[in-house]
Amino acid sequence: MGALPTFADIEKAHELIRPYIHRTPVFTSQSINQMVGAELFFKCENLQKVGAFKFRGACNSVFSLTPEEARNGVCTHSSGNHAAALALAARMRGIPAYIVMPENAPEIKKKAVAGYGARITFCEPTLAARESTLKRVAEETGATEIHPYNNFNVICGQGTAAKELIEETGAPDLVMAPVGGGGLLSGTALSAKAMLPGVRVVAAEPAGADDAFRSFYSHTLIPSVAPRTIADGLLTSLGSLTFPIILNEVDQIATVSEENIVAAMRMIWERMKIIIEPSSAVPLAAILENRVEVKGKKVGIILSGGNVDLGKLPF
Amino acid sequence: MGALPTFADIEKAHELIRPYIHRTPVFTSQSINQMVGAELFFKCENLQKVGAFKFRGACNSVFSLTPEEARNGVCTHSSGNHAAALALAARMRGIPAYIVMPENAPEIKKKAVAGYGARITFCEPTLAARESTLKRVAEETGATEIHPYNNFNVICGQGTAAKELIEETGAPDLVMAPVGGGGLLSGTALSAKAMLPGVRVVAAEPAGADDAFRSFYSHTLIPSVAPRTIADGLLTSLGSLTFPIILNEVDQIATVSEENIVAAMRMIWERMKIIIEPSSAVPLAAILENRVEVKGKKVGIILSGGNVDLGKLPF
Repeated sequence: MGALPTFADIEKAHELIRPYIHRTPVFTSQSINQMVGAELFFKCENLQKVGAFKFRGACNSVFSLTPEEARNGVCTHSSGNHAAALALAARMRGIPAYIVMPENAPEIKKKAVAGYGARITFCEPTLAARESTLKRVAEETGATEIHPYNNFNVICGQGTAAKELIEETGAPDLVMAPVGGGGLLSGTALSAKAMLPGVRVVAAEPAGADDAFRSFYSHTLIPSVAPRTIADGLLTSLGSLTFPIILNEVDQIATVSEENIVAAMRMIWERMKIIIEPSSAVPLAAILENRVEVKGKKVGIILSGGNVDLGKLPF
Repeated sequence: MGALPTFADIEKAHELIRPYIHRTPVFTSQSINQMVGAELFFKCENLQKVGAFKFRGACNSVFSLTPEEARNGVCTHSSGNHAAALALAARMRGIPAYIVMPENAPEIKKKAVAGYGARITFCEPTLAARESTLKRVAEETGATEIHPYNNFNVICGQGTAAKELIEETGAPDLVMAPVGGGGLLSGTALSAKAMLPGVRVVAAEPAGADDAFRSFYSHTLIPSVAPRTIADGLLTSLGSLTFPIILNEVDQIATVSEENIVAAMRMIWERMKIIIEPSSAVPLAAILENRVEVKGKKVGIILSGGNVDLGKLPF
């Protein structure tokens, strides 16, 4: 395990990536506030470039490379938002991005990554094949591997979303984020606890993918095995960097039902007129399910992304 | 026909309603800009209160009443966004709103209007029944009728959306809005032409509801008969106030296919991660269909609203 990032690293990351990212808006909804009896502030990372907070971490990783490192580009294996984010960040710096994708990845994701100019290597759809293919690509190209969440610079980049949220809303009593691999959550917690010493940081996770919940309360990193949830951004296991930060800085992890994830997603679509992906709805689902004490409180919530397949909606 | 509003009236309206409305954001999309070869600025009235620009006109009407008039409240017949907008504006001023709705209006609309505290009178689903019921309600209550678009104060209120859009974006070469009854379009045109003498104002209308197109080019008010379109906010005929303003101030009305309305709607959902109703997509549809010359130009577009039934999407 390497050194853990601090808030000073997040501040540095913010300076570095500010010219490239959107400073996304913070939205509120009077009707949702009335329903839950709290004041909710939603940080709209669904409106971030590539439609997800992942662009912050990818940008920080790419622009933190020395010129020598940068020359050989970056690589990762991913079929999701991280691949698109890394591809766009690399294009902005004018360096190559090598993405390893399972050959059965959805066409739309392949197109998106290719559209940002990344070079894609396809492999069999197993973790072993993805890792061995990535190793080969890295050796052949000299590209720097950028892990989607278990990476110092990625965590620092993700922490900038909560930093902006708190700068904009003053002092929330609670800050919430969904948890998958923990990149967003650990960055969020570092920012929140440094900026507001009395704040509570609460994560939300689907009950069908509750490895972070079990890891947190047993103080043992338990990997995600056969997760089942509509929140497809939250399937992964915590990492050796994200887990200790979460243990140190997070106050609670709440799990929620699939039914309430869909209800929360629909509520945000209908009331706020913005498109979020299921993973983004998980914190509000925890509030609807009364898993988190929010009555009368000011709550900052990170909406992590908005990439959904409109042909496969759960409504 | 009464006096026509001027830009000075829109400026006054803006001062009056500013404390009650959202100053909605203006969004851009690099990927849509690349696809159409122009710089598009979308004014997000889908994020306005009650989810539509209609709240601006309703607010201006309600807050323009004298205290004596206000005491008896306001009334209208509507099953759509105007009813909800008028109900909320009346509640904000603390006066009654009487809404005549056809008994077969969707439950969700009835609930929304009732939720804002309006008193609903149901009638048979014919225009004759709606008008005679409204007449009776107005006589019994002394409430002031607020027509959804053919009303001086409503037009002035709707014109404030384009005013904000132009204030924010500098000087677009073109301003576009959809056209139904013409309240939004006439207000938009008055603001745009007064603020930017050289600007082109272009309206877009579904080919299946092209009464404004035919009225405009024949200089004769042709009513809407049996319109067929997914853009359910654009079914109505122009009015005696909106038509002359449109004749004076608008440069072009373009008609578009249903297919391109759905394609434009989907493009905005997918690329911009915001929910718009089909009527809002009609101007972008006209651009996709090459009905409007936009290459290399700066184009302001009003996204009129975001109220859709998620159970009945066209994707």
